Amino acid sequence: MNFASDNCGPAHPQVIEALARANTGFARSYGADDLSAQAGARLRELFEAPQADIHLVSTGTAANALALATLAQPWQAIYCTPLAHIHRDECHAPEFYSGGAKLTPVGTGDKMTAADLANAIAASPPGDVGVSQPGPVSLTQVTEMGRFYTLSELSALTETAATHGLPVHLDGARFANALTVLGCTPADMTWKAGIDAVSFGGTKNGCLGVEAVIFFNPEKSWEFELRRKRAGHLLSKHRYLAAQMLAYLADDLWLTSARTANARAARLADGLRALPECHFLADPQANMIFATLPRATHQRLHAAGAHYGLNGGPLETGDPDTPLPMRLVCDWSIAEESIDRFLDIAKG
Amino acid sequence: MNFASDNCGPAHPQVIEALARANTGFARSYGADDLSAQAGARLRELFEAPQADIHLVSTGTAANALALATLAQPWQAIYCTPLAHIHRDECHAPEFYSGGAKLTPVGTGDKMTAADLANAIAASPPGDVGVSQPGPVSLTQVTEMGRFYTLSELSALTETAATHGLPVHLDGARFANALTVLGCTPADMTWKAGIDAVSFGGTKNGCLGVEAVIFFNPEKSWEFELRRKRAGHLLSKHRYLAAQMLAYLADDLWLTSARTANARAARLADGLRALPECHFLADPQANMIFATLPRATHQRLHAAGAHYGLNGGPLETGDPDTPLPMRLVCDWSIAEESIDRFLDIAKG
Amino acid sequence: MNFASDNCGPAHPQVIEALARANTGFARSYGADDLSAQAGARLRELFEAPQADIHLVSTGTAANALALATLAQPWQAIYCTPLAHIHRDECHAPEFYSGGAKLTPVGTGDKMTAADLANAIAASPPGDVGVSQPGPVSLTQVTEMGRFYTLSELSALTETAATHGLPVHLDGARFANALTVLGCTPADMTWKAGIDAVSFGGTKNGCLGVEAVIFFNPEKSWEFELRRKRAGHLLSKHRYLAAQMLAYLADDLWLTSARTANARAARLADGLRALPECHFLADPQANMIFATLPRATHQRLHAAGAHYGLNGGPLETGDPDTPLPMRLVCDWSIAEESIDRFLDIAKG
Amino acid sequence: MNFASDNCGPAHPQVIEALARANTGFARSYGADDLSAQAGARLRELFEAPQADIHLVSTGTAANALALATLAQPWQAIYCTPLAHIHRDECHAPEFYSGGAKLTPVGTGDKMTAADLANAIAASPPGDVGVSQPGPVSLTQVTEMGRFYTLSELSALTETAATHGLPVHLDGARFANALTVLGCTPADMTWKAGIDAVSFGGTKNGCLGVEAVIFFNPEKSWEFELRRKRAGHLLSKHRYLAAQMLAYLADDLWLTSARTANARAARLADGLRALPECHFLADPQANMIFATLPRATHQRLHAAGAHYGLNGGPLETGDPDTPLPMRLVCDWSIAEESIDRFLDIAKG
Repeated sequence: MNFASDNCGPAHPQVIEALARANTGFARSYGADDLSAQAGARLRELFEAPQADIHLVSTGTAANALALATLAQPWQAIYCTPLAHIHRDECHAPEFYSGGAKLTPVGTGDKMTAADLANAIAASPPGDVGVSQPGPVSLTQVTEMGRFYTLSELSALTETAATHGLPVHLDGARFANALTVLGCTPADMTWKAGIDAVSFGGTKNGCLGVEAVIFFNPEKSWEFELRRKRAGHLLSKHRYLAAQMLAYLADDLWLTSARTANARAARLADGLRALPECHFLADPQANMIFATLPRATHQRLHAAGAHYGLNGGPLETGDPDTPLPMRLVCDWSIAEESIDRFLDIAKG
Repeated sequence: MNFASDNCGPAHPQVIEALARANTGFARSYGADDLSAQAGARLRELFEAPQADIHLVSTGTAANALALATLAQPWQAIYCTPLAHIHRDECHAPEFYSGGAKLTPVGTGDKMTAADLANAIAASPPGDVGVSQPGPVSLTQVTEMGRFYTLSELSALTETAATHGLPVHLDGARFANALTVLGCTPADMTWKAGIDAVSFGGTKNGCLGVEAVIFFNPEKSWEFELRRKRAGHLLSKHRYLAAQMLAYLADDLWLTSARTANARAARLADGLRALPECHFLADPQANMIFATLPRATHQRLHAAGAHYGLNGGPLETGDPDTPLPMRLVCDWSIAEESIDRFLDIAKG
Repeated sequence: MNFASDNCGPAHPQVIEALARANTGFARSYGADDLSAQAGARLRELFEAPQADIHLVSTGTAANALALATLAQPWQAIYCTPLAHIHRDECHAPEFYSGGAKLTPVGTGDKMTAADLANAIAASPPGDVGVSQPGPVSLTQVTEMGRFYTLSELSALTETAATHGLPVHLDGARFANALTVLGCTPADMTWKAGIDAVSFGGTKNGCLGVEAVIFFNPEKSWEFELRRKRAGHLLSKHRYLAAQMLAYLADDLWLTSARTANARAARLADGLRALPECHFLADPQANMIFATLPRATHQRLHAAGAHYGLNGGPLETGDPDTPLPMRLVCDWSIAEESIDRFLDIAKG
Repeated sequence: MNFASDNCGPAHPQVIEALARANTGFARSYGADDLSAQAGARLRELFEAPQADIHLVSTGTAANALALATLAQPWQAIYCTPLAHIHRDECHAPEFYSGGAKLTPVGTGDKMTAADLANAIAASPPGDVGVSQPGPVSLTQVTEMGRFYTLSELSALTETAATHGLPVHLDGARFANALTVLGCTPADMTWKAGIDAVSFGGTKNGCLGVEAVIFFNPEKSWEFELRRKRAGHLLSKHRYLAAQMLAYLADDLWLTSARTANARAARLADGLRALPECHFLADPQANMIFATLPRATHQRLHAAGAHYGLNGGPLETGDPDTPLPMRLVCDWSIAEESIDRFLDIAKG
């Protein structure tokens, strides 16, 4: 019963097999090998973006921070929500990589609106050297509360950004989980909706550790390569990143895994919805659930060995009826039996 | 016939198998898993350093730059040779991570002496805020020319550094290749010789991509963790780094692989030594050979499909007798047949 | 009628005279001259802090950013209010100098409470490498809304900080304006109240451009000197900074100037208070007034040549009765006649 | 008898008078005042560069570091001589401001040749992400050894740079001292010779502290303004920088002062040349002399109170005949009597 994160489960066996297959003979290092070329070509095809500039790295934080540093000047704001992973969970990686850009919260929750964004931009009067200059916008899809932006919401945001000449980055650590819910193409959810750069996640959805950074406008390609190198994020045996990505995209593995994860979360959400003492903090739209359960219920779940994120106070002591918020994440590997057992225990 | 680099060969099958074995069930993320704990314990045991602070990263540049940034202030010199990988081949990663420390060349080749180091330090008069302040020393073992420091050379250097209160870092991308030549223990070649921090390489010697950063004095452990995180170098599915390292150290795989690589290079060097037109640029002491061959010989080798580093001018045109320098690197996987074939072609 | 800022008025003639007096013969450069020694000694005496470490720079942004960079690690939060000058008006100087520390808003206005601060610190769970680590607190005295912290408010804040081992910085760009209101000693308002470092402003109160950075615990003195040098903020002809500071402190010029500025602002505030259409946005406690006047009144004032900060919409068009917020700042040089004229025009 | 540096003398009285004159009434802050506009206009006229982008700062290190950071990317080399002030005397300011560019020594002394530069650039093979990418060239005029580049030497260097698309910066801390020797116009020595950006020094030649950064191609004007602001180098009472610069340029004060300084140095050099035991280390071409005198001579000079830079060993003890190198700098204020007295004592 592990709902701690979608980075706690194993990689998909097909990805491991691809590593083994890639492990033969000599290959050029630093991304000049055949598999790396194939991975780039496959991604360009998938995104219907033959000009796109694509680079693989091994972590989501590296993908986000390198992408944003490429888009932002150090005296600019990077607009994101107050809950954004880049703002709250990456130990100042965007500030470090950008040389001091300021993550500027927009809106109040996990999603911003175009009006929120316009207001935030308006707080930087043109010509004032003291204030943050407007800079890139970073949106997270699936959001940090397990929700998604619709295509029209994305377009409204990117139009507002474009009005001010600002590029838009998409943190797609859970790209596949959103895509399969929206039922659109990768192009629809990115460049067709006005997105300039994407962190396309593989790690949380069945890989060991690989993310693609995709720029639809390739003009900063060489700069990105240099940023990646000086960060120590260019793997010498790059074929093993490429092999993961190729396996991830082969036979729709990435979509199948995301659909499974989302379905597991839906099963879990349905079960929780039946509990009168469970209150949802956000509508569970993908593979994450944010809700409260009484302390006593959490105590039973923990006693039974359930793992998940718990906030709001001590587990062991206090009023047994106090609702405590939790985060439950399903990955592609979680068994239905684990979900049903979790629900049984929660029911009491 | 691939002698381009020891990062062009495959990973050892035992390492791939270890990944497959690690790929089962849930594990805590970000290094809190059991395999990561085992890898740390195994390394502490191996280095006879129970207090050591050990962190895994996926590239040598990350290991070096994060280690040096932890040891250096931005206004300090980092003393290294003019040929040091950190100075010439890492796209300013040490400058980036340290916030502007100055890589200061010591000596004239791939090795520095204690006298060279003392002279370099003496160039920074105490109390002068304009000049580089003395900072850490970084030594490479095996050096960038394929040689090694003896234990007494290392000790002389670390004593000079200690006289000025300067820490010493060892870039051990080819740690095992040096260790097996010296025939000493890991402790002998590091903390017993006065080394404070080591980049302990696995990638070039049979792993996919894993290096350990080892601090023998653990006082900056938490700082290092933060540096690694904000760099995007903390892998969420950290178990796969740990599994590589554990497999690498199991059954002396790391030593066996290094001995094989060194033996292959020795076989190649012996063959070259028999060619009157071959001149060595450095005594080949581990798994790398720096030597010259006439242009015509290089032309034959390239026509036969040999891969290796070539400098000094165009291959295709020019005097066929002009000696052109080359770098030949043997990894654990190179076949003896490839070496013999290379030599046959070189003989003409 | 210039109320735009206390950096728009002239320097005090005694300061200019001091520059002329200092302008004789040779002096050692880079702060090793006699006047610089005297300035340091005078400040240490004034602050009753014989051990204090004191450095002069030419701007408030340099003072703040260098002080905070000395106190903060790049992965730490710098706690300040959402209106703090360091957060809103310094073009990311603290982020630049610190290498990426995150300015973290505490409270909702120009002052924070100890409870606000405790809540902000509590948002960083110990041991989590993803979040901002707790770091220094920066308080502004006089605040950005023209108010001040009482000594007991300061002590409550510094005690909260000390509980978590966090240093406290005071942005004293208007130090004298607050001190004369509080009627306490410099020591009372700083180290006796738990403050660790101060940006002690001279520029806004009668100097051309000089601020002192004071650390009551001198352990990072050498580091600060290096930070200042590599920032290009160590003036070679340092005597001219020192001469300004000495003249500023001589004969209580600094206190007299601040009292004058505060008295002028009080006269202005009294006059405004008599206007029923004027609404104060903050209680004017020093030399700044934040209030609203109807658009029509602003139009009259601007037509008459008044200079001051105006927000909230276009001046020229719109409902003449709409209240528009303004900032009025009095420096030591503003004439009473200017104030009275401003009030006359405002009365209509 | 103070020959320690041209930053040890006083400011010219006309500069102080200009400060006093500027010290009247209110003025817009942060460079929006009338004097700042006049200073910019005057400099553009002087350099015959109506499009030039000009910014004042208070130190030479700030001027150099901000100019170079505007021209360089962090992964680029900044080419300079091994003796360059930016490399040896600015505490890594260029590295700090640029985010990690690498100061790359060219040539072996205080001057580089076009061939030296071409060789240095050739060390960075195109397409290699590991090496420093070619970046701006920084030349010092007068050089750190008191010599100058001829106009044809400058042009040869800038042509080599232009071949590779590299901008050229001129560190003109002693711009006037070189210009008056060359007898050309400011335009001749800068943009007409292919220079892109200049640090135009005032501090060492009679000002308190002011340098102009001049970009002949204004495309990065706004970026520079932001860089200056976030560095804390935008003075709020900017009129006092402008007043210095205006006084410096008025009535050819800058040229007269430089000619005086150069003439004093020539008188001193002539006197030293007559001493058989004096050996010049460089041809004294402006206001600095690098030469050796026997230890005994230095002992007499020091006993008489002379101040100047001395290297090469202890003054007090050792063979009295050993030649010890010295640096003697003349500013505009040094009296001929001081020079003659110095020479008298040196003669013995």
